[in-house]
Amino acid sequence: MPSGKLQVIPLGGLGEFGMNCMAFRWADDIIVIDCGLMFPESELLGVDIVVPDLKYLIEHRDKVKALILTHGHEDHIGGIPWFLSELNVPVYGTEFTLAMVEGKLEEHGLLDDTELNEIKPGERFRIGPFTVNPIRVTHSLVDCVALAIHTPIGVVIHTGDFKVDPTPTDNQLFDLHAFAEYGKEGVLALFQDSTNVERSGYTPSERAVRTKFEEIFHRTKRRLFISCFSSSTHRIKLAIEMAQQHHRKVALVGRSMNDSTEIALDLGYVDVPDGLLIHPGQIKDFPPEKVLVMISGTQGEPMSALSRAAVDNHKHARIEAGDTVVLSSRIIPGNEKAIYRVIDHLFRREANVIYDDGSWPPIHVSGHASQEELRLIINLVKPRYFIPIHGEYRQLRRHLELAKSMHGAVGHAMMIESGEILELDELGARKNGKVAVGRVCIDSGSMGDVVEDLVIKDRRHLSEDGIVLPIVAINKLTGEIESAEIVTRGFASEAVAADITAQGHDVMAKTLRESSSEEMRDYGVVKEKIRQDLKRFIVKSTARRPMILPVILEI
Amino acid sequence: MPSGKLQVIPLGGLGEFGMNCMAFRWADDIIVIDCGLMFPESELLGVDIVVPDLKYLIEHRDKVKALILTHGHEDHIGGIPWFLSELNVPVYGTEFTLAMVEGKLEEHGLLDDTELNEIKPGERFRIGPFTVNPIRVTHSLVDCVALAIHTPIGVVIHTGDFKVDPTPTDNQLFDLHAFAEYGKEGVLALFQDSTNVERSGYTPSERAVRTKFEEIFHRTKRRLFISCFSSSTHRIKLAIEMAQQHHRKVALVGRSMNDSTEIALDLGYVDVPDGLLIHPGQIKDFPPEKVLVMISGTQGEPMSALSRAAVDNHKHARIEAGDTVVLSSRIIPGNEKAIYRVIDHLFRREANVIYDDGSWPPIHVSGHASQEELRLIINLVKPRYFIPIHGEYRQLRRHLELAKSMHGAVGHAMMIESGEILELDELGARKNGKVAVGRVCIDSGSMGDVVEDLVIKDRRHLSEDGIVLPIVAINKLTGEIESAEIVTRGFASEAVAADITAQGHDVMAKTLRESSSEEMRDYGVVKEKIRQDLKRFIVKSTARRPMILPVILEI
Repeated sequence: MPSGKLQVIPLGGLGEFGMNCMAFRWADDIIVIDCGLMFPESELLGVDIVVPDLKYLIEHRDKVKALILTHGHEDHIGGIPWFLSELNVPVYGTEFTLAMVEGKLEEHGLLDDTELNEIKPGERFRIGPFTVNPIRVTHSLVDCVALAIHTPIGVVIHTGDFKVDPTPTDNQLFDLHAFAEYGKEGVLALFQDSTNVERSGYTPSERAVRTKFEEIFHRTKRRLFISCFSSSTHRIKLAIEMAQQHHRKVALVGRSMNDSTEIALDLGYVDVPDGLLIHPGQIKDFPPEKVLVMISGTQGEPMSALSRAAVDNHKHARIEAGDTVVLSSRIIPGNEKAIYRVIDHLFRREANVIYDDGSWPPIHVSGHASQEELRLIINLVKPRYFIPIHGEYRQLRRHLELAKSMHGAVGHAMMIESGEILELDELGARKNGKVAVGRVCIDSGSMGDVVEDLVIKDRRHLSEDGIVLPIVAINKLTGEIESAEIVTRGFASEAVAADITAQGHDVMAKTLRESSSEEMRDYGVVKEKIRQDLKRFIVKSTARRPMILPVILEI
Repeated sequence: MPSGKLQVIPLGGLGEFGMNCMAFRWADDIIVIDCGLMFPESELLGVDIVVPDLKYLIEHRDKVKALILTHGHEDHIGGIPWFLSELNVPVYGTEFTLAMVEGKLEEHGLLDDTELNEIKPGERFRIGPFTVNPIRVTHSLVDCVALAIHTPIGVVIHTGDFKVDPTPTDNQLFDLHAFAEYGKEGVLALFQDSTNVERSGYTPSERAVRTKFEEIFHRTKRRLFISCFSSSTHRIKLAIEMAQQHHRKVALVGRSMNDSTEIALDLGYVDVPDGLLIHPGQIKDFPPEKVLVMISGTQGEPMSALSRAAVDNHKHARIEAGDTVVLSSRIIPGNEKAIYRVIDHLFRREANVIYDDGSWPPIHVSGHASQEELRLIINLVKPRYFIPIHGEYRQLRRHLELAKSMHGAVGHAMMIESGEILELDELGARKNGKVAVGRVCIDSGSMGDVVEDLVIKDRRHLSEDGIVLPIVAINKLTGEIESAEIVTRGFASEAVAADITAQGHDVMAKTLRESSSEEMRDYGVVKEKIRQDLKRFIVKSTARRPMILPVILEI
């Protein structure tokens, strides 16, 4: 075994949901697996997306040789424009994954300057000391791979996101044999998806949704609307096939639904005979029982096509009494209010609404492996080291416990979080040091527009109790106070605010009167005194804590 | 049948989650069933609780004769202090429900002026033209009743919240016979709880939790912490009984856990032998395997005992490696982030954490009736009119469909929402008119402190893109501008804000320069011009829309 060490450095996604990104380093060569985004918690006010802090990679920019992608979901590719604008390295991904990336790069003007390399399951490629073998896995979208990475000290396997679907709708089977082969030859480390570790048993096959779709297509007498994640190629394919069988034309409504489906059509993942697809403007030209509308907006996004159609505010997608609307997707925690608001509106339009309410057959199945599938892969791979990836702390922890209990199959189970360096060499594996990681908050879709923590803190403060502005005009020649005023916003009802303003005026006047002329020359001191005295008065009289921001105007 | 009409007026809880409140009126007599609160959506920034707008009752204050309570949950009694401070009428409730109300009234200084009347299942009482018969039902807390209300034109039944638990832990059976009797005699209208209408089958009995508790008590070798809703008397009783069997002392930690359990002990719902309860300060005096800590904070509330213990910041409740922490409750949608944050902290403390992850036997069961239980009650009652209550729009709607499909058992199923008047007389039932309803937002726990919509709107705006304050000092004698400045908060990073401020200064100077002297005398016009010009400049250069609040100081 050669001397040297393999360093594994998760930059996002271990101990947090989303923004998956992991670096593998051998001496002066670094390869990076995925670079995803995270949708911000509502606490991050006004922030649109969150991406991992890439400081470590930027500091070692000359060593970073490649970005390799496992699949085309946003939490694995959403940070790529941000990544490439800092680090212009070749990108490796399967055909469909690269197609999803291309649109993003075009939007950010990065497409022409980026080297995109298509990879195929089973076709190995070399980057410096690493030989990478993509292995086909099943998931909720097409063309997903795990990565077997041959390093100088052994093979490590990164599963990406997966489930073990025994009956995938595209008949592209999960390559159990590759995992088995590697297991027989010996695997140094397995890095496995933890997303569904809390679920016992097996995740149902994507094919389970077919039964429910069949029932819906048979029963529906009028217009049918189906919404699903635009990346759910399997689901879209199924819907389009059934539309054809049931003699319905298909209209694609909403930008993301349209873009993704066009990609799937271009690449041949979905097969559509001529004349099946119609333009949204033609929906009204066909009888209601002859139309299927595939529509964006399964998470209740306020500007999505479905949200607008639900309040009868979409030009082409008009939902009428007796129509059927299907939400074929998970209700992502945090989105319940928005989704149920859309469902309520649909019911108000007298539509028949079908959504994931736990009934069987399911209208949606997960794309991630449950406990028995996780155990199956561990048994096939029999790694010396096992490391859970892709999950919040509790999920990594439960995945660790699951692996620890598999004595015959796992040498040693270890847990690392984003930023912790895992070092593997001929002596074994250990945590060794940390790198700086973190979240970069991006506002308004502009990639350069980073929002600082302080700004978010201010917004939070403003959002809780509003703002009170004591404003004083001081004559810079005489040092005398020419005018003083208090302005408030988002603080209290008009009457209360007026009252507080009037009394606060007296408080401020007293503060100024009692300040020495020396203090009055130092505006910093004056501001702080005003702030403190007003704060005390306001907390006492209203029990609220608005942001108090004294302003001194020199005139 | 006497001439006259019964009006049913839901003031909250029909078409929204929480703040249940419903008025029944016959001529000049009104009785009100429940007055609950709603926990605010995160959109209502800085609002603590939400209660129904009681305008209709206040306008008819001389007619309101009584407030009758079905049970002691916050969404049924949380608005009572607000109700009673406006309408001082007698309150009717079972022993336990009234005990829960008493604490609230004491806190708001209303206890001495309120007439509380204890009611018992099966003991009828009369209020004006109404005779009310409380019927025992099962739910997640004790002493719950449905109400059969005898009116001049027939009996209407209001179920309150319920499930049909065939094996309640306190052996106080659901009074199926009373419902059956009424069904045989003829019921005019049934108003039934819709909370769990989306769930098929039966809700498991509260007793199903016992199996899981037994497993936990048997397996746990060190300290055991159990958190549940403080109103879950059944659950607390079970935990205390098991502690006794397993020779553990019991400490109650957290105000709500302590208060509710004291009430349950006082009223004899929980039986505790001398010496079993210990003071939280004594936890450290007993070996870890001899202690059960019942602790508040199952929803991850930031200041709760469990949240503080999870970060090792509680004086008495110290959680150590190997301890077991049980969250015996539902993860209420919207609270996931907070709850999982607590669970993560507990795992980091190396505790064994047990929470509702869908596994069987369950660590929590619902208190609301699933579809088969709803059908059972409908079959027993056989109402002429059926009206779903307690649910969001989609739930009311699905409950309506469920009832409509029961042709033999339901005469006519109707749906009303909060504010809609349902009128019943000898000719039948119909919607007839509306009353003003709405949400009253209350800040900071002070009952008088109503937050106006405008204030919330301002806070939302502030929270999204911050605030920009152009401030101009104008000499009132000369009309000249003495000084001008721009201040920002929560708007952009310091560098960007400085840049915008500097350039905005020029924009503002230009606006002022180009204003006529007539405009300059009207500060309203000046402010609006500054606001518009700055807005255009800021949107163009940053794509953000901060609140722009021009201030003019006259000096």
